[in-house]
Amino acid sequence: MQEYGELLPPERLLLGPGPANVDPRVLRSLSLPVVGYTDPFLYGVLDDIQELLRYVFQTSNRLTLPVSGTGSAGMEMAVHNLVEEGDEVVVGIAGFFGDRIVQVIKRAGGKVIPVETEWGRALEAEKIEDALKNSNAEVIAVVHGETSTGVLQPLEKIAKIAKEYDALLLVDAVTTLGGSEIKVDGLGIDACYSCSQKCLGCTPGLAPVTFSKKAYDKIANRKKELRSWYLDVRLVEKYWSGDRVYHHTPPVSMLYALREALRIIREEGIEDRWRRHETTGRALIRGLEALGMALLVEDEEIRLPQLTTVLIPNGLDDAATRKELLERYGIEIGGGLGPFKGKVWRIGLMGYNANVKNVLHLLSALEKILKKHGFPVKNGEAVKAASEYLESR
Amino acid sequence: MQEYGELLPPERLLLGPGPANVDPRVLRSLSLPVVGYTDPFLYGVLDDIQELLRYVFQTSNRLTLPVSGTGSAGMEMAVHNLVEEGDEVVVGIAGFFGDRIVQVIKRAGGKVIPVETEWGRALEAEKIEDALKNSNAEVIAVVHGETSTGVLQPLEKIAKIAKEYDALLLVDAVTTLGGSEIKVDGLGIDACYSCSQKCLGCTPGLAPVTFSKKAYDKIANRKKELRSWYLDVRLVEKYWSGDRVYHHTPPVSMLYALREALRIIREEGIEDRWRRHETTGRALIRGLEALGMALLVEDEEIRLPQLTTVLIPNGLDDAATRKELLERYGIEIGGGLGPFKGKVWRIGLMGYNANVKNVLHLLSALEKILKKHGFPVKNGEAVKAASEYLESR
Repeated sequence: MQEYGELLPPERLLLGPGPANVDPRVLRSLSLPVVGYTDPFLYGVLDDIQELLRYVFQTSNRLTLPVSGTGSAGMEMAVHNLVEEGDEVVVGIAGFFGDRIVQVIKRAGGKVIPVETEWGRALEAEKIEDALKNSNAEVIAVVHGETSTGVLQPLEKIAKIAKEYDALLLVDAVTTLGGSEIKVDGLGIDACYSCSQKCLGCTPGLAPVTFSKKAYDKIANRKKELRSWYLDVRLVEKYWSGDRVYHHTPPVSMLYALREALRIIREEGIEDRWRRHETTGRALIRGLEALGMALLVEDEEIRLPQLTTVLIPNGLDDAATRKELLERYGIEIGGGLGPFKGKVWRIGLMGYNANVKNVLHLLSALEKILKKHGFPVKNGEAVKAASEYLESR
Repeated sequence: MQEYGELLPPERLLLGPGPANVDPRVLRSLSLPVVGYTDPFLYGVLDDIQELLRYVFQTSNRLTLPVSGTGSAGMEMAVHNLVEEGDEVVVGIAGFFGDRIVQVIKRAGGKVIPVETEWGRALEAEKIEDALKNSNAEVIAVVHGETSTGVLQPLEKIAKIAKEYDALLLVDAVTTLGGSEIKVDGLGIDACYSCSQKCLGCTPGLAPVTFSKKAYDKIANRKKELRSWYLDVRLVEKYWSGDRVYHHTPPVSMLYALREALRIIREEGIEDRWRRHETTGRALIRGLEALGMALLVEDEEIRLPQLTTVLIPNGLDDAATRKELLERYGIEIGGGLGPFKGKVWRIGLMGYNANVKNVLHLLSALEKILKKHGFPVKNGEAVKAASEYLESR
């Protein structure tokens, strides 16, 4: 058997779809001494996390906690608890993660009423209303920030329709929570999930979820237990609520990290954090446009600030360029998913990484690469465009 | 909203059923910089982990990886992949975690053929054979180390029966992996899962699993997809295998920690590690007996060295004594589960914690507490008994 050396990860600037770089404060908290799952100290951590998650989700939902798994486990928890065998669900599909919801619903035994739109566009609320009218669906599922396309889905109209038709609204906030305005109670969202490693600024491994009273009542009145014991929120909550009934051993170090990441958000203020993501994302766009690059999402209003999808310029090789960015500049950006593979790059500015310094570093690296390949870019033009935008704010 | 202070966990000696204290090397690895899920560096980490897990499981199974969840997620992955709707499964039930397997199988749509024994005893292989004979079961599920009772279930006879009847053998090694001899290939185990926070010496949050070729073939030939998308091992393996097809964002920091914990095991040597757990556990027992305490598991041969269940002496209050141990001596031990609540303590000596120093510290604290409550214990008798045993080894 080969020898296993000391772990020496390279220092990367993670400007892909996540994980983003993690605040040193959060990394440090991971190394704190572990305590047991009945330790009064840990109970305090659980309570803090729940309160802080309510703040980040902008909700007073009692049932607000992090799932002991990654974002996809959060999706599975939300779907499997809310959707019973045979239930119809209207699903907005505008990219890879809308598709994923479809798969998870089908596995839960649900029947998907799809409402599709071209990747790179937002869903039309009217079509969702039509689907709702013409079905027995009691749940609408949509993705708030579609990481595969860089579209920020407006939720207001959809939320209004959900209310009118008395349907439950399930929202995937994997890419938006902590980065874009989302008010769970204000909009009337009934189930919402996210991940730890994007705009929350933590390391990957946890999935915050929240359920409204209405969602909880549907879950409590299920005809049959859900198939998953691990993700049965009514079992999980018994530990997170005051009763502390053992369900599974919580991932203590990850909980420390999440608490620290949420504490940092609380210190910054959630509105300021939304603004920071928006400003940084828009500055990046100015710079990319100054480099002559085109964005996938044409409508400015629905561009996801924390994840920009840019078309790969003709003449640049996808993999080779990303490799050069990684190896020469230490920058990771994301490739395209599904139909966008080889056609689009996904540039993330999330959490700890959503700042000017990173925008300028990336633009400067892209400028050098474009120049090397003979693209007509002017020296410093991109950095100038981004800087001017930032100064104007 | 209240203020959230700096996280300052108390220093505890974790001698309960897990998590155990984590080697400082492992804790430190948690703070290393995070990289993306397509980073060549991370691919190296994934490969190392798989190889090291094969060493720890003593298997050459290709499909050997850590589930992105806790030990219970590992149980759910093993059960849901192997058990289809309507499948009969012979389940050995000798404690809380045997019961848990039953619940998970039922949720997967399986039909449980229970083989029960009194809590505190081992399962009888003959009864398992009878159940197999009288059913259509193709899977036998047993717990190797029953954390609720402190029984180490002998597996040889059961494994032989599984072979004879061409049944798949599913083994819960949550408490034993890395602490007690378990040879997946040697015994012919087809599916085995564990957790990170017990004898592997890592922090909680990951669940190593391994599937034999035979198990894999059953999974590949399922009539229907399993209900869980997150735990579908055929999807998960596409990322862990050479193809690196994105499934979910791996918990990078936790993977760093697991690799470091496994590297430490490799340095120690798995046989030496099994011996260390056995010796330390037996030393504890000598000490407890010198204090006049009685063990739950009467048969010495089946005592789980890394988790000793001891009867709470008449006249000592369960909660108050554990609180005193925690607050005055910084020691956490576990309370009883199910019918043993208030009757039994569970003392773990796992991974980093399985050493003399901890045995002596605990015995000395227990001696003081017993004395204070008027029990006739001789000064230093327990420490002497444990030390003498250790010197004789």
